Amino acid sequence: MTAPGPSEDALRVHRAFAAALPALQAEVCAALEAADGGARFSTDPWERPGGGGGTARILQDGPVLEKAGVNVSDVRGEVPAQLADRLAPAGAPLVAAGLSIVVHPRSPLVPAAHANVRFVARGEGAWFGGGADLTPPYLFEEDCVHFHRTLRALCERHFPGRHAAWKREADRYFFLPHRGEHRGVGGIFFDTLPADEAALALAHALPAAFLAAYLPIVARRSGAPFGEAERRWQEIRRGRYVEFNLVHDRGTLFGLATRGRIEAVLMSLPPRVRWPYDHRPAPGSREAALLEVLRAPREWA
Amino acid sequence: MTAPGPSEDALRVHRAFAAALPALQAEVCAALEAADGGARFSTDPWERPGGGGGTARILQDGPVLEKAGVNVSDVRGEVPAQLADRLAPAGAPLVAAGLSIVVHPRSPLVPAAHANVRFVARGEGAWFGGGADLTPPYLFEEDCVHFHRTLRALCERHFPGRHAAWKREADRYFFLPHRGEHRGVGGIFFDTLPADEAALALAHALPAAFLAAYLPIVARRSGAPFGEAERRWQEIRRGRYVEFNLVHDRGTLFGLATRGRIEAVLMSLPPRVRWPYDHRPAPGSREAALLEVLRAPREWA
Repeated sequence: MTAPGPSEDALRVHRAFAAALPALQAEVCAALEAADGGARFSTDPWERPGGGGGTARILQDGPVLEKAGVNVSDVRGEVPAQLADRLAPAGAPLVAAGLSIVVHPRSPLVPAAHANVRFVARGEGAWFGGGADLTPPYLFEEDCVHFHRTLRALCERHFPGRHAAWKREADRYFFLPHRGEHRGVGGIFFDTLPADEAALALAHALPAAFLAAYLPIVARRSGAPFGEAERRWQEIRRGRYVEFNLVHDRGTLFGLATRGRIEAVLMSLPPRVRWPYDHRPAPGSREAALLEVLRAPREWA
Repeated sequence: MTAPGPSEDALRVHRAFAAALPALQAEVCAALEAADGGARFSTDPWERPGGGGGTARILQDGPVLEKAGVNVSDVRGEVPAQLADRLAPAGAPLVAAGLSIVVHPRSPLVPAAHANVRFVARGEGAWFGGGADLTPPYLFEEDCVHFHRTLRALCERHFPGRHAAWKREADRYFFLPHRGEHRGVGGIFFDTLPADEAALALAHALPAAFLAAYLPIVARRSGAPFGEAERRWQEIRRGRYVEFNLVHDRGTLFGLATRGRIEAVLMSLPPRVRWPYDHRPAPGSREAALLEVLRAPREWA
């Protein structure tokens, strides 16, 4: 006997979402190419032996964007042992589709950024999850305000009243307990939104809202001069990004557990990274000011 | 009622091992400083709020060694939930002491290397674990042979007949399933050697054997010229080292779970690292030759 799977309604929502992914991916890539003004995205389609597949699109070594990835995938199979729980035991039907965006700019004055929307059906349940967050090496308060206000407007359009909770969820999720630091200045995060039409509409709208939240910051900061010291600090902060993604990030662990294409799973890792021993910024420096915010998240919107 | 702890014999072995750690650390640091010929180790002592502590010693930016760490620690407390199993439930007494050595040379022609010895008592059981392994960006067969033969001689002195099994354990342990690659060319690995006098003697002898296995390779290779392409390949391979340590390495996960000093736990991470998307060496190149060995480990001794 096969374990029960998602409802017909949930599968219809899945089909609508999966059908929209290529256009969403194309829209995001076009906007990031325009922001970069030089490099182009390559396209790397892959199939998963267990069922489904995806397309990784990667831009590297651009004048503005050092590495950016925009991935879509739509996989099906069985819940692997590492992801099993009471609701969805190992072997239960698994359907997962999503879009992931990760941007690592060249300039340390431009924040890294990430956004993701995903449909996941495990056993009989089906949910949307997703979010967006900003990871600046240097703090520009107006950038944080713009990013968070744009995401708040998205939330108000689709799920009025939820923004504050989703901002708190982002602060809770994008956190490195071993460092006592948040990964960046947060954004929004939601994980188990029942997979209905309202959630589908949010998932469709999130990528464009992310671009509206992020690209003005890229445009505003990427022309400013910086030196070796700022670049070094950026590469140290990128080390924290790696620590978060490899130790904590559920999307990465999901990709490793479901054996998606490994380069697509790990496209989020920054292009160049440093781990000096016990680097501590000078008290009163701009680097120390960032750390204060990473240790005590603020309300920006 | 307190959960039962290790036997008096095991605690005596622990005391002898812990007492030897500072001298072992000093010996390894002196040898690595001599091999570098320039930089000196700094000393970073730490205490653990739950009990015990350690001393991290770090050398950075030397002419030969880009980053090297030699850590000792001796902590006690309770088994944290993440490390609990049937033999040692959460809250059972935990005693752990060890020495860890990680070396990231500057030249891509010099392999990175790692060695570790540790005493761990969880609940009523007490064991020694440890090992050593070599992670070259470029393959020099005579270096691999020398490294493995030296470790085999150590095993033959202390545990005759075990070397082949411990070499297989190293191949099994230092493996990245998501890449289908071993971390390097292996070495030895043992995890649950009952904590008696014979195991104590092996633990005392391993650091010097590691130096004898590794330092001649450093001396032989570190003067040879290399270019940007070799350096780039080294930094890409270091990315795999990070992936292994953050996703799989039990010592790192133990350190994160027991909340040791975080910089000491993560001192193993390489100083500079790259993650370009889907880098593939040219067929027939020296880089491709390394990958072949990482995918199909050889017997070197």
